[in-house]
Amino acid sequence: MAKSIVGVMGPGEEASLSDREIARQLGAGIARHGWILLTGGRNAGVMDAASESAHSAGGIVLGILPGKDKKEASAHLDIAILTNLGEARNAVNVLTADVIVGIGMNPGTASEIAFAIKAEKPVLLLNCPPEGVAFFSYLKKASPSYRGLLQPVQSVEECIEEIEKLLSSNPMLTEKEYSGS
Amino acid sequence: MAKSIVGVMGPGEEASLSDREIARQLGAGIARHGWILLTGGRNAGVMDAASESAHSAGGIVLGILPGKDKKEASAHLDIAILTNLGEARNAVNVLTADVIVGIGMNPGTASEIAFAIKAEKPVLLLNCPPEGVAFFSYLKKASPSYRGLLQPVQSVEECIEEIEKLLSSNPMLTEKEYSGS
Amino acid sequence: MAKSIVGVMGPGEEASLSDREIARQLGAGIARHGWILLTGGRNAGVMDAASESAHSAGGIVLGILPGKDKKEASAHLDIAILTNLGEARNAVNVLTADVIVGIGMNPGTASEIAFAIKAEKPVLLLNCPPEGVAFFSYLKKASPSYRGLLQPVQSVEECIEEIEKLLSSNPMLTEKEYSGS
Amino acid sequence: MAKSIVGVMGPGEEASLSDREIARQLGAGIARHGWILLTGGRNAGVMDAASESAHSAGGIVLGILPGKDKKEASAHLDIAILTNLGEARNAVNVLTADVIVGIGMNPGTASEIAFAIKAEKPVLLLNCPPEGVAFFSYLKKASPSYRGLLQPVQSVEECIEEIEKLLSSNPMLTEKEYSGS
Repeated sequence: MAKSIVGVMGPGEEASLSDREIARQLGAGIARHGWILLTGGRNAGVMDAASESAHSAGGIVLGILPGKDKKEASAHLDIAILTNLGEARNAVNVLTADVIVGIGMNPGTASEIAFAIKAEKPVLLLNCPPEGVAFFSYLKKASPSYRGLLQPVQSVEECIEEIEKLLSSNPMLTEKEYSGS
Repeated sequence: MAKSIVGVMGPGEEASLSDREIARQLGAGIARHGWILLTGGRNAGVMDAASESAHSAGGIVLGILPGKDKKEASAHLDIAILTNLGEARNAVNVLTADVIVGIGMNPGTASEIAFAIKAEKPVLLLNCPPEGVAFFSYLKKASPSYRGLLQPVQSVEECIEEIEKLLSSNPMLTEKEYSGS
Repeated sequence: MAKSIVGVMGPGEEASLSDREIARQLGAGIARHGWILLTGGRNAGVMDAASESAHSAGGIVLGILPGKDKKEASAHLDIAILTNLGEARNAVNVLTADVIVGIGMNPGTASEIAFAIKAEKPVLLLNCPPEGVAFFSYLKKASPSYRGLLQPVQSVEECIEEIEKLLSSNPMLTEKEYSGS
Repeated sequence: MAKSIVGVMGPGEEASLSDREIARQLGAGIARHGWILLTGGRNAGVMDAASESAHSAGGIVLGILPGKDKKEASAHLDIAILTNLGEARNAVNVLTADVIVGIGMNPGTASEIAFAIKAEKPVLLLNCPPEGVAFFSYLKKASPSYRGLLQPVQSVEECIEEIEKLLSSNPMLTEKEYSGS
């Protein structure tokens, strides 16, 4: 059966130590729950940290890259989607994930959270600056069609719990939809 | 000679009356200055209001659409780029414009401002909620490579003045680059 | 009123002298008829030759580029769409044009003719090798939904005549659709 | 370790019975060799037939879809990439695969083979009409930078043998590149 996909979005080279540590813990948790980890696929920052820990924990790691060169891919991917679409690939990442987790914040991550609200995907925010929490709450309120969950979480544990609830309660997000076997 | 392109981004159906009125004034100003107006191209909200007034004022109006159906295009476009890329087209809009103006705010507009910061394009914000001003200022500070201008402006007049300054002072933004004639 | 868009597709650096000469004649003819010329926008081969002559003849030249750097754009564009989508931009070129003309043949051009058949756009082929004519005729026959015109033409004059017929006879291709003014 | 990805491209609804039977055999062979099967992901034709048999044989099946709706996905995918890019997703499929196999022929498949030549990927053709073999041979000759293998194969067995040779002999195609673990 097709597995649920959790998208972990966050800064690359400019990720903080704290962003990376959170990404490592979250990647391992995602793997242990049998979900597929999706990241932006590069060998940097949150993408690489989450990929490494999920891979080590025996999970499946999927990276959707902005370029076409495997050299920029994290060494811990099981599958590298080479889009060569530049930043436009951020839209593909969001549509492909069942749940989006943002760790930290930078312009690329901001575009992904915004796309997630537009696409009505649930969003959890870890280590998000207060300006980000306030802004995305505003966007949510200003998007009457958005009925998803968008909320900051205070720990990786809480994040994992929320993902579990989302994936178990929302039939729109389960594996049944695209696997009949 | 190739003309400068001013991208005006803002909500569609959910645009406020104030957003639309500002878009109308700005579209006319852009046309009068001989700049090309670029929008997301749909027949709704800020896109349609700016396109109508720029077209009426004799300007060139370029729309880059998410779909492939001309029926969703504003009736006031001179050129409709039919991408069929969905929201990924937001990245194309930003790269194609020399300056980005955001009017109002919604998730699509937020993704475009975020992409503009990532692409190091100058950004002016009209009718932006305080949560947006605070968040994009945060993103700018968190992006050391971004040396562009990002600032809220209080009126269409101030916005036009800032665009003039940006297009005259920054040789990276002028027409000389891709027109040798 | 929005003008019809004629897409001219053909090789870049590897274009033959004959491809370039045909592109020059066709670009001028497109401009004289008041149609917008659309190309892949680069400063090479068919794209550059058609753009230069259309621009010199007073036409509007639109280039949809694979990259994001104006330096790779033809110096003869009026409007450069910087997609940064790589080869995926070929799909955008085809959807944006009302009629597609292929000059010569290479893999990029082949992908565009194939997309045009898929999108049910009319296609004219100039300087197409016999293998190309035979293959695209096969594809047309194998695509029962395709009711467009796909045919080789023997001269630029014949090509222009066919475009005139296509744009005047097919209400799906006229300007009325996306310009109400 | 990241596994090699074999892209199988071919018609959807209009696939012949023979195309589907070949796809079924090839999908199973790909799975048995431990390669990842990549298709265009839809629940039709070559895509669905190859996915079903690869999945049944215990393989990993990756679909890169043109839309954003899981309902159009094959029920036999392990991972569905929802691009919403329309036909532009064909470029992503090609860049993501290490080897491309075309089964049968239609405009979408033709665009993918053309992109594969442009991207210098090896291509094998099964059940390809003679017009296709002749045309792609022409394109190969006309692309001096293309040093890949492009050849028709007469059976699924021959196809699998060629893929084995390609993946073992060409260090550019092996897993070592993006998996260091």
